[in-house]
Amino acid sequence: MSEGVPFARVALVGLGLIGSSIARAARAAYPGIALAGFDLDADVRARAAALGIVDALPADIGDAMAGADLVILCVPVGAMAAAAAAIAPHLAAGAIVSDVGSAKAPVAEALRAALPGVTLVPAHPIAGTENSGPEAGFATLFRGRWCILTPAADAPGEATARVAAFWSGIGAKVEVMDAARHDLVLAATSHLPHLIAFTMVGTASHLEAVTEGEVIKYSAGGFRDFTRLAASDPTMWRDVFLANREGVLEVLDRFLGDLAGLERAIRAGDGEALFDWFSRTRAIRRAIVYEGQDTAAPDFGRAPAA
Amino acid sequence: MSEGVPFARVALVGLGLIGSSIARAARAAYPGIALAGFDLDADVRARAAALGIVDALPADIGDAMAGADLVILCVPVGAMAAAAAAIAPHLAAGAIVSDVGSAKAPVAEALRAALPGVTLVPAHPIAGTENSGPEAGFATLFRGRWCILTPAADAPGEATARVAAFWSGIGAKVEVMDAARHDLVLAATSHLPHLIAFTMVGTASHLEAVTEGEVIKYSAGGFRDFTRLAASDPTMWRDVFLANREGVLEVLDRFLGDLAGLERAIRAGDGEALFDWFSRTRAIRRAIVYEGQDTAAPDFGRAPAA
Repeated sequence: MSEGVPFARVALVGLGLIGSSIARAARAAYPGIALAGFDLDADVRARAAALGIVDALPADIGDAMAGADLVILCVPVGAMAAAAAAIAPHLAAGAIVSDVGSAKAPVAEALRAALPGVTLVPAHPIAGTENSGPEAGFATLFRGRWCILTPAADAPGEATARVAAFWSGIGAKVEVMDAARHDLVLAATSHLPHLIAFTMVGTASHLEAVTEGEVIKYSAGGFRDFTRLAASDPTMWRDVFLANREGVLEVLDRFLGDLAGLERAIRAGDGEALFDWFSRTRAIRRAIVYEGQDTAAPDFGRAPAA
Repeated sequence: MSEGVPFARVALVGLGLIGSSIARAARAAYPGIALAGFDLDADVRARAAALGIVDALPADIGDAMAGADLVILCVPVGAMAAAAAAIAPHLAAGAIVSDVGSAKAPVAEALRAALPGVTLVPAHPIAGTENSGPEAGFATLFRGRWCILTPAADAPGEATARVAAFWSGIGAKVEVMDAARHDLVLAATSHLPHLIAFTMVGTASHLEAVTEGEVIKYSAGGFRDFTRLAASDPTMWRDVFLANREGVLEVLDRFLGDLAGLERAIRAGDGEALFDWFSRTRAIRRAIVYEGQDTAAPDFGRAPAA
């Protein structure tokens, strides 16, 4: 292993937005690294091969594992158990297995069951776009974004440190967290926002009183901000909600309570309650921009070109 | 009135984001136009004067009306009645009065009561950013965006045509609509999305189990998309919800019904129902991007700079 290169050969299982972005980012950060890829979908394999983002793209998942010292499962949360079972017989000795699932506690259980004795350092890069597939990935996706590691209790500290180094090397900021806490934090910062966005976009598009054409036409009034999240991969998100059901329902319950309070204020004409609430939420955005997790460009800079 | 310039002298009452953007856009589109401005807040007047965005900025609202053939009220919806009463004694003969409020039926009533006999052509440009104040405005804010006119029943067609020409000239696409219909359409495309965003951001920032610091840190998982809307002007939005109470409550009711359905699906582990819903919402975004009301740049192009 060369200086500063935490792994010599990385195998990526699943070559969608995240898997293909890791491939591109690793290639850019670690020029000598060997990258193997696999995808259950032959069409995705062919497209990834055409893009040239990995060195080897065997049709057999076992062949992709050969010699890999890091294997990252980049498949929907609901497919993790099957992917882990498929790689189990083929892992090189000492290989570390990681994943990029958005729910960590249930995935950890699935990986442990399928991979007894294997060093597990699950990860969740808090980065993404609404696009899917190997063409959608790009090398800078993780730059400046957080990647949360939730190492198994029995994972050696050295293994966690190597996975952390891998993510730092491709531009991410790394944090180590307990899997259960991860799931609650992400329920609030990611899962509930997606559920709300999916709901809102669906609601607006099937109102009887307002046509879908009107909704699209006048979407710049606010609605369009929800549509990016609501355009995210349906399979991925179905799995996240099923896997992190408890965390999502807990935060949803709080949201519904708050929404009922604002609904009462509107019904009662209580302008003061509305003003107070709306004043507090402004500060949060300033903090997010300050932390570099968003841009302050007005309208995200999406004013149409001249 | 020169060729292609629908008004010779425009008076803008309220010099926040929208008023100051109209001033800049009109200056750019109609070089010879005379622009008068007024703001109840002396500090805003001073800042607008320093920016040089209008020709005249009298401390007396009556002086700003002198000779204006178009007066546009750019104040929060709840301040429209007072603004209309303040300009009433000073309007030049034949002046057309418009506004930019986000709720139209209640504003139309307030304007009619305060301005009997005056030609009223209310407008709502579907454009904005989360920033406020005269510094936040820019000349291209309305470019490619829709502006909905809701002329009073007794407004001459010629007056509506002139106001339409004014907005077209500064880059907007113009539509004429009944005020009540406007309020329902905007409840779906703008008011409810803002209410939901305000709620979501408030909820996430006062959870006991998750700290505000964590919410900010991991906001790129989806939460940050809500924060732009939730950073919008509190006074403006308080007034919108109070003014368009019925439209907002009607659409909110549908949203809550849909959300309850998805909650049941999560609780029951009904992945098929979730997948079906999430698949439908993707198409809406493609249509919005196709219509030029959003950009297809992944992540709105807000990946951090290299």
